[in-house]
Amino acid sequence: MITSTSNPKVKDVIRLRDKSSERRSRGLFIAEGRRMVEEVPEERVEALYVAESFNPDDWRGPSLALPCAETVSDAVMAKMADTVTPQGILAVVRQERLTPKQLSKGGLILMLERIQDPGNLGTIIRTAEACGADGILCDGGTADLYSPKVVRSTMGALLRVPVAVTEDPAGTLQGLKESGYSVYAAHLQGSADYRKARWPEKTVLMIGNEANGLSEELTACADTRVIIPMQGRVESLNASVAAALLMFEWRRCRDEAR
Amino acid sequence: MITSTSNPKVKDVIRLRDKSSERRSRGLFIAEGRRMVEEVPEERVEALYVAESFNPDDWRGPSLALPCAETVSDAVMAKMADTVTPQGILAVVRQERLTPKQLSKGGLILMLERIQDPGNLGTIIRTAEACGADGILCDGGTADLYSPKVVRSTMGALLRVPVAVTEDPAGTLQGLKESGYSVYAAHLQGSADYRKARWPEKTVLMIGNEANGLSEELTACADTRVIIPMQGRVESLNASVAAALLMFEWRRCRDEAR
Repeated sequence: MITSTSNPKVKDVIRLRDKSSERRSRGLFIAEGRRMVEEVPEERVEALYVAESFNPDDWRGPSLALPCAETVSDAVMAKMADTVTPQGILAVVRQERLTPKQLSKGGLILMLERIQDPGNLGTIIRTAEACGADGILCDGGTADLYSPKVVRSTMGALLRVPVAVTEDPAGTLQGLKESGYSVYAAHLQGSADYRKARWPEKTVLMIGNEANGLSEELTACADTRVIIPMQGRVESLNASVAAALLMFEWRRCRDEAR
Repeated sequence: MITSTSNPKVKDVIRLRDKSSERRSRGLFIAEGRRMVEEVPEERVEALYVAESFNPDDWRGPSLALPCAETVSDAVMAKMADTVTPQGILAVVRQERLTPKQLSKGGLILMLERIQDPGNLGTIIRTAEACGADGILCDGGTADLYSPKVVRSTMGALLRVPVAVTEDPAGTLQGLKESGYSVYAAHLQGSADYRKARWPEKTVLMIGNEANGLSEELTACADTRVIIPMQGRVESLNASVAAALLMFEWRRCRDEAR
């Protein structure tokens, strides 16, 4: 059992928890808590830490007898965990890195540009799974998908929704258009009411930064700029709310087309 | 100019900022930052604090020459403000306390039960304004609407959307039903697809706690339980996302009925 917080493995978990550069360069992230770790496929577990007080009854996640599993004292778990009340289990998990091409299975792809708030990002990923999107494509300016706060707020969806990062969003969009995708931009100066737009099966929906919206460069890539008509004096909707309304509008068109 | 952080007025602002009981008993809250304070109607300003470095050019908010306005040093402003980079202006504002009856103008009323996350609450209020709801009704278990984080995340909507708190939600709902409202519950075991439900003009939409949903007591008050069909293995949507999808569905029906 690991009882010292200066154990190199403990320090390694803390580095992965706190440093996005570390997560990125090594392709790893931390999943924490009973429900989240239960979702992790065994083959993606790089290390598994179980607190001495953890109750293994009804555990349905990766085997606690994996060679990479270790018991740690409760004090060590508290030090490693990102949450104030850790639930006694934590895994180091391999990121699934897909290429944009691997996302293009013919349905909805959500393209995020410079989304900054981890809570928004997590909510968007969770909503994307719920609406049946094929995956999420992020530009390099979007916040780290694998930060503890994003992982937590996806409620497990990050382990199930395919994600890819592109450093050349305009080029990637061009490739998707050539393979038959229509590109929709959520835009405050949009001309098409989102409820009247035709949402085809193969859609890329672009959502931009919380404060500034989509860049001109990406807006120019859109086939259609859609707007969500608003009452009152609200200037814009929260990014995760706008994404949800538009993704579920795509879903409605799919269900009606059946 | 106030230059001491031990000035009683400064201490009073900090108490109002940090203590929900203080805000509640005195019916006041703190609005902070240029854009938020600009939205505050002059007649609701109880006190106005302007940092010495504040630039009054293009200021369109309450008069900086109000008798209750005071200049404070930048250090004092930093101490009073809730944000790390205060924007040099802060107001003590009177809460607008309405009765549930005052909300019932014939359109959509959003009823919140035990919503806990300030970010969700702020986003819901902002979305409610955007969809043209008449107002928001909260049970006593919902987080304080006037905490700095909620105020900030409404982006000004809290100053424009009517809100009321009821300590007897079931009784209040009964009264609304008697005056012609239909009551809809967002429910994971709902039987009506939200896209196929008939959303009447006079609707009360109930959204429950993030982790547990609506209580049995309030669910029993519903005329219709609506469900948002989900793909994948997501157990539920974020409360502010579910609220947005349902409120905008009400909006769609209103716009189509025109």
